[in-house]
Amino acid sequence: MIDETTIAAANEAADATLRADYDALGEHLSRRGIDIAAIKDRVAAYGVAIPSWGVGTGGTRFARFPGEGEPANVFDKLDDCGVIHQLTGATPRVSLHIPWDDADPADLLAKAEETGLAFDAMNSNTFQDQPGQAHSYKYGSLSHTDAATRAQAVEHNLYCIELGQKIGSKALTIWVGDGSNFPGQSHFTKQFERYLGSAKEVYAGLPADWRLFTEHKMFEPAFYSTVVQDWGTNYMIAKELGAQAHCLVDLGHHAPNVNIEMIVARLIQFGKLGGFHFNDSKYGDDDLDTAAIDPYRLFLVFNELVDSEGTPDFDPAHMLDQSHNVTDPIESLMNSAMEVQRAYAQALLVDRSALAGHQEENDALMASETLKAAFRTDVTPILQMARRESGAAIDPVSAYRRSGYRAAVAQTRPKADGSGGGIV
Amino acid sequence: MIDETTIAAANEAADATLRADYDALGEHLSRRGIDIAAIKDRVAAYGVAIPSWGVGTGGTRFARFPGEGEPANVFDKLDDCGVIHQLTGATPRVSLHIPWDDADPADLLAKAEETGLAFDAMNSNTFQDQPGQAHSYKYGSLSHTDAATRAQAVEHNLYCIELGQKIGSKALTIWVGDGSNFPGQSHFTKQFERYLGSAKEVYAGLPADWRLFTEHKMFEPAFYSTVVQDWGTNYMIAKELGAQAHCLVDLGHHAPNVNIEMIVARLIQFGKLGGFHFNDSKYGDDDLDTAAIDPYRLFLVFNELVDSEGTPDFDPAHMLDQSHNVTDPIESLMNSAMEVQRAYAQALLVDRSALAGHQEENDALMASETLKAAFRTDVTPILQMARRESGAAIDPVSAYRRSGYRAAVAQTRPKADGSGGGIV
Amino acid sequence: MIDETTIAAANEAADATLRADYDALGEHLSRRGIDIAAIKDRVAAYGVAIPSWGVGTGGTRFARFPGEGEPANVFDKLDDCGVIHQLTGATPRVSLHIPWDDADPADLLAKAEETGLAFDAMNSNTFQDQPGQAHSYKYGSLSHTDAATRAQAVEHNLYCIELGQKIGSKALTIWVGDGSNFPGQSHFTKQFERYLGSAKEVYAGLPADWRLFTEHKMFEPAFYSTVVQDWGTNYMIAKELGAQAHCLVDLGHHAPNVNIEMIVARLIQFGKLGGFHFNDSKYGDDDLDTAAIDPYRLFLVFNELVDSEGTPDFDPAHMLDQSHNVTDPIESLMNSAMEVQRAYAQALLVDRSALAGHQEENDALMASETLKAAFRTDVTPILQMARRESGAAIDPVSAYRRSGYRAAVAQTRPKADGSGGGIV
Amino acid sequence: MIDETTIAAANEAADATLRADYDALGEHLSRRGIDIAAIKDRVAAYGVAIPSWGVGTGGTRFARFPGEGEPANVFDKLDDCGVIHQLTGATPRVSLHIPWDDADPADLLAKAEETGLAFDAMNSNTFQDQPGQAHSYKYGSLSHTDAATRAQAVEHNLYCIELGQKIGSKALTIWVGDGSNFPGQSHFTKQFERYLGSAKEVYAGLPADWRLFTEHKMFEPAFYSTVVQDWGTNYMIAKELGAQAHCLVDLGHHAPNVNIEMIVARLIQFGKLGGFHFNDSKYGDDDLDTAAIDPYRLFLVFNELVDSEGTPDFDPAHMLDQSHNVTDPIESLMNSAMEVQRAYAQALLVDRSALAGHQEENDALMASETLKAAFRTDVTPILQMARRESGAAIDPVSAYRRSGYRAAVAQTRPKADGSGGGIV
Repeated sequence: MIDETTIAAANEAADATLRADYDALGEHLSRRGIDIAAIKDRVAAYGVAIPSWGVGTGGTRFARFPGEGEPANVFDKLDDCGVIHQLTGATPRVSLHIPWDDADPADLLAKAEETGLAFDAMNSNTFQDQPGQAHSYKYGSLSHTDAATRAQAVEHNLYCIELGQKIGSKALTIWVGDGSNFPGQSHFTKQFERYLGSAKEVYAGLPADWRLFTEHKMFEPAFYSTVVQDWGTNYMIAKELGAQAHCLVDLGHHAPNVNIEMIVARLIQFGKLGGFHFNDSKYGDDDLDTAAIDPYRLFLVFNELVDSEGTPDFDPAHMLDQSHNVTDPIESLMNSAMEVQRAYAQALLVDRSALAGHQEENDALMASETLKAAFRTDVTPILQMARRESGAAIDPVSAYRRSGYRAAVAQTRPKADGSGGGIV
Repeated sequence: MIDETTIAAANEAADATLRADYDALGEHLSRRGIDIAAIKDRVAAYGVAIPSWGVGTGGTRFARFPGEGEPANVFDKLDDCGVIHQLTGATPRVSLHIPWDDADPADLLAKAEETGLAFDAMNSNTFQDQPGQAHSYKYGSLSHTDAATRAQAVEHNLYCIELGQKIGSKALTIWVGDGSNFPGQSHFTKQFERYLGSAKEVYAGLPADWRLFTEHKMFEPAFYSTVVQDWGTNYMIAKELGAQAHCLVDLGHHAPNVNIEMIVARLIQFGKLGGFHFNDSKYGDDDLDTAAIDPYRLFLVFNELVDSEGTPDFDPAHMLDQSHNVTDPIESLMNSAMEVQRAYAQALLVDRSALAGHQEENDALMASETLKAAFRTDVTPILQMARRESGAAIDPVSAYRRSGYRAAVAQTRPKADGSGGGIV
Repeated sequence: MIDETTIAAANEAADATLRADYDALGEHLSRRGIDIAAIKDRVAAYGVAIPSWGVGTGGTRFARFPGEGEPANVFDKLDDCGVIHQLTGATPRVSLHIPWDDADPADLLAKAEETGLAFDAMNSNTFQDQPGQAHSYKYGSLSHTDAATRAQAVEHNLYCIELGQKIGSKALTIWVGDGSNFPGQSHFTKQFERYLGSAKEVYAGLPADWRLFTEHKMFEPAFYSTVVQDWGTNYMIAKELGAQAHCLVDLGHHAPNVNIEMIVARLIQFGKLGGFHFNDSKYGDDDLDTAAIDPYRLFLVFNELVDSEGTPDFDPAHMLDQSHNVTDPIESLMNSAMEVQRAYAQALLVDRSALAGHQEENDALMASETLKAAFRTDVTPILQMARRESGAAIDPVSAYRRSGYRAAVAQTRPKADGSGGGIV
Repeated sequence: MIDETTIAAANEAADATLRADYDALGEHLSRRGIDIAAIKDRVAAYGVAIPSWGVGTGGTRFARFPGEGEPANVFDKLDDCGVIHQLTGATPRVSLHIPWDDADPADLLAKAEETGLAFDAMNSNTFQDQPGQAHSYKYGSLSHTDAATRAQAVEHNLYCIELGQKIGSKALTIWVGDGSNFPGQSHFTKQFERYLGSAKEVYAGLPADWRLFTEHKMFEPAFYSTVVQDWGTNYMIAKELGAQAHCLVDLGHHAPNVNIEMIVARLIQFGKLGGFHFNDSKYGDDDLDTAAIDPYRLFLVFNELVDSEGTPDFDPAHMLDQSHNVTDPIESLMNSAMEVQRAYAQALLVDRSALAGHQEENDALMASETLKAAFRTDVTPILQMARRESGAAIDPVSAYRRSGYRAAVAQTRPKADGSGGGIV
């Protein structure tokens, strides 16, 4: 972890500037009838989960270029996640991926306590073969034509639940790459029936207080068809499985040009929004840093979320899911967590009463301007103040760089192997 | 109509060549274990509906360039449709669009009898304002914020049903352009609730032996959001409305790269495929001639349809829906009807037993080849022989051109106005 | 025009708030080492041209829903454009479209003087047929297979230059819809050779101090191929024609996912960026209000422009090109002009020295953050102050609504016809 | 290699059926005025190169599932390529990738002679780091900000030329992944200038009888910008470098919906088409088997190529470039080579005189039908007869499966490691 006094000293040095910015923003918001402190408190209470695999350097099928001091195991990963939360105060939970992060539950809990973290949704992995595995997932897992392979995949998911229960997780996330690369390779309907059959077996093993999140993706690793290819199919799954099943939305898993915020609204309306894998995308499942490409789109998603706050049983899970190919993963995750907070803060500023009026009157221009007025507001001082007050860093990236954390762990962690492509 | 003796003479002249081609194909198919006559009979029994508006020249928002002898009213349109059916034997039904085609039911029935046609699904129009209309659809119709506007749109749909009942139609197709051009302009959920409310009122007016088809479209005329934007939303609509409600699939209404045949399979699996608007597309809702751009995609759709033949209550409606901007609409519709027949014939040739085996074995290459073997077969002689035997033309376009039909109607029909954009 | 005292009164009422916001921003920017007054002066000097056709209500091929008081002719349009410039101070020039705006040059100049406007690039129209036109553009214009049709299109462009010279324009913009709807319809190479031949004839008629702008577009009105389909082809045109020929970039004319700011950079690098048609797009050539969908993309374009300021002979033309289907066009154009100014102001705030350092060091995260820091800054007070000081309105939309201008012109202008699709 | 007598026996067994099909097709083509033997001879003379890396199982960033008997080195790969050529007679050349295939030139030449193959274009690799490499390509290679890294990449390309000269290659293909993942990360213009500078150094080392092929790609491995992102930039490169530089077109490297055959036509027109990487794509650089997804698109590309035959200096290189994730790579490459032949044969059947007439007359429907008539023709018997006569297999996949080749090499080759992602 980073030395607290270093953080405090940096915060102290930045304090006057922050106060000036915060006060000026407070006055400006006050003129708009908004209480800055109320916004700040809601932002301070907001958290987004970190994916354990996100702290390693990502890659593509062409190459992976590891950085210094890459985490070698789940405990290293939790250390890195602890630093992220320490500096941002915005990432209280970590989501594990099994078998990558498989370990003794007691050890996991101990490390979590040490790093000040809790465990978010468990992620199963049936898109790769593991050494010694009886049946290959080359041609699918939960939807494989072979019953034994499907059973193995179901079993793995049940194991993830079992492990998750021991460490305080309350959800299982299933993403599979099952699909096909050729027209004709798979019978669409039989394949989906097999998927549903397997998913029902997993669902049957779900504890009463757990949720099951299924995630759609348009393509990759399958390049002609994917069994859970869009939100329509994913919605059917959640309906077939039952009340504990919900749909996960990853911002990069859609067809080009698709209106994602509208999908979010539809899933909320029908009670099936499970949560998010936040990232950003220009071409496909690029897994870029959240809001790096289209910050207004992220805001529009949060506009839907804030609009639905207070809906009964509305409690979507928020997680980052990114591939950090050219940055220090800790820095990217800190920044992305702050971008998610930023979008949330901006969405809180929307004058919803005015917006509703413009919508009712079909005053498209003023409706658009109402959203834009919130989006344009630079809420940085609110985020900074929320961190300042919780003991996190006003400027996390700067504090992290000054801390020497990366160089320190590079001394003790083994040098990562750059061969092969990158898996994220 | 075209003089029958002209058709017969042309057929006679082409007969020897057709026999040679047909016999050679018959022998080839026989070596593959397929009875050509059985395929021919199924093709002969197949029909696709013509949209009444398709016989007029289409256009874009930039311009419309009318051709000679454009139909001036629904009776002219039925004449043109009659010619298409006479020459192809493949288009026994016409789908009307109201109010464009509104007329005395008795006159419509008389004209249908004269032209040898029947009436397919009725299409309502609440995406345009009509002269004297009380409420404008500028900001929506079935989902408008204003209750009176919604009521007017519902009323119009009920009128379409009423008229349809008098002329033997058994289905209503609803497509609306309702949506928004700005983030914030419409509240997604409230808008969709209003849509559902209105649609339920229409559904309540549906006769017991009718079906309701709703059609999704990604964009245009709305350019930020569309209330029925994809098959997922459309499926929700069909579920909410009831057993008589089904989803229509237009091949150009999807996001880029989307796997359309998979959507078809999903809708079949869940009992909600209503039918098709056939056309082709390279960029968006281009409404190009069917199979002009990607004939293999059309084949893959028909592969799903043939695979599902025999499923209880499986009876999708088949209709063309194209915009003919640079061709004689009669020629394009004849050609497109034959392309649909071609894809059907090819799909009938798929060795489904072999395919199922390859799928079970995950033999992707041979599965793909099994489809390709059917697609590659030039079934032209089968289509020609089916026409020959029913008295239609072996070569409809050639027969049409020789008939002088277009020049003849150009003498009597008023010259079309080229101003304004083209509506299709 | 709007009564100046109304504007002044509204400005007076908003003055205190503006001062407070402007001063707070000034102090904040000062802490970042930026002089707010210098930014404000550059914004105040910035102008974007208005397309004459933008003040009419747009539409789609499906419908056009006209608003109240639509301009009936070019003089009405200039009145509306005058109001836009009066209230925003940001739109000093109007771009005419011929023959839509054809009129006596003396009358045009008189009206321009009356409304305080000048004339920007001339736009020719060979994508529509005009009454009495000898040769139709149904199958193309500058690239038509028929020499007489090409000659007619060339002649029209030369006429546009001639008229433009009389009213002080210094550029001709050519956009054609020439292309094809079927594979095989046009021979790509011969078609492009014909285009180049015609374009050279137009170029030969260009005065020495004029520029020729050609504009690419991926699709629509042609739906299989378009002769000037992308910037690569457009660049070839500009190279073939000569030093006065440059490429125009419309933000909605690209393939999905394309990196537009990179195209801008390439054209600048090779000396061929002619200018812009600003608007926004989610699906295709949606012609939505500038920055309505993706404000960060607009900023990234301006980041390239500001980065290249000072390059010899670098003088791109800036124009809006939008279709206003659901808003009052005057309001949309005012707002869009301000959005363009906003992006310019934000781009001026980029710390280019820091950015260059991060780029050199491959510090991707800090490079991204450097752009974001500029984009996040709410520059509204800078824009408002620039307007305030020039006598324009602090809040143009509010001032316009209060002025009653639309209702007033609706009294005198003929009611627009809603039939047909909308042409923009 | 496969035992020749096995091939001969299988051919003998299929001979009667082939004769019947070939004769029937010959008669049919004769009725269309086409000499089947002439087509067959041209098909027989046609060859497409195999990428050495294509004979290994591909993968994605998520996983790679190796098959049995994967080639362990370049000599194994050449054995596999030899089998492909033996059975299809269509793949006389292999394209090497350095350093993956680096070996003693004498050994390479000996193996080539043994397998009946020659060497096609050399491929350099500066998108991965190799063990012991002085400078990392994490942030780019030919366009890296660091001069020493660029020099290292240039040096590697010169080495590839040197090696290629020793084994009879006549071309170097450069594809780099250089780009950026964040707006701001790279300065577009400086980056491209660095690329051009490095490329000029490589070009300077090109022997007089060599060609340099550069290849564009829209995205991946870079996800915000790519330095050679489209054919426009690639064309600029070829122009800047000189007469020996040409552009390579990979069918999966374009933006969604792009008209690829038109790009091919443009590059031919301006003398810069270098050749192809054939494969098929539904979503992005999917690297699926050629013609697996859209066979008509491949035909339209070949339609351009056949149309340009005879143009001086027109000699594009043809190569497959695919990733075989779920099939036996040898089977996929055989099939794909035959698909390329098929498209060539179909394009040879186009009635170009009739087509030119329809184009001149703007008879879009008949122009489209003229292409379709050629495409619909099942040319399988022509391809089979060409193989039969050259001693290759009538049915290569069947012969290969019966040969037991894969099982045999699996005995001697080391078992492949499935860890890491797949690189293709």
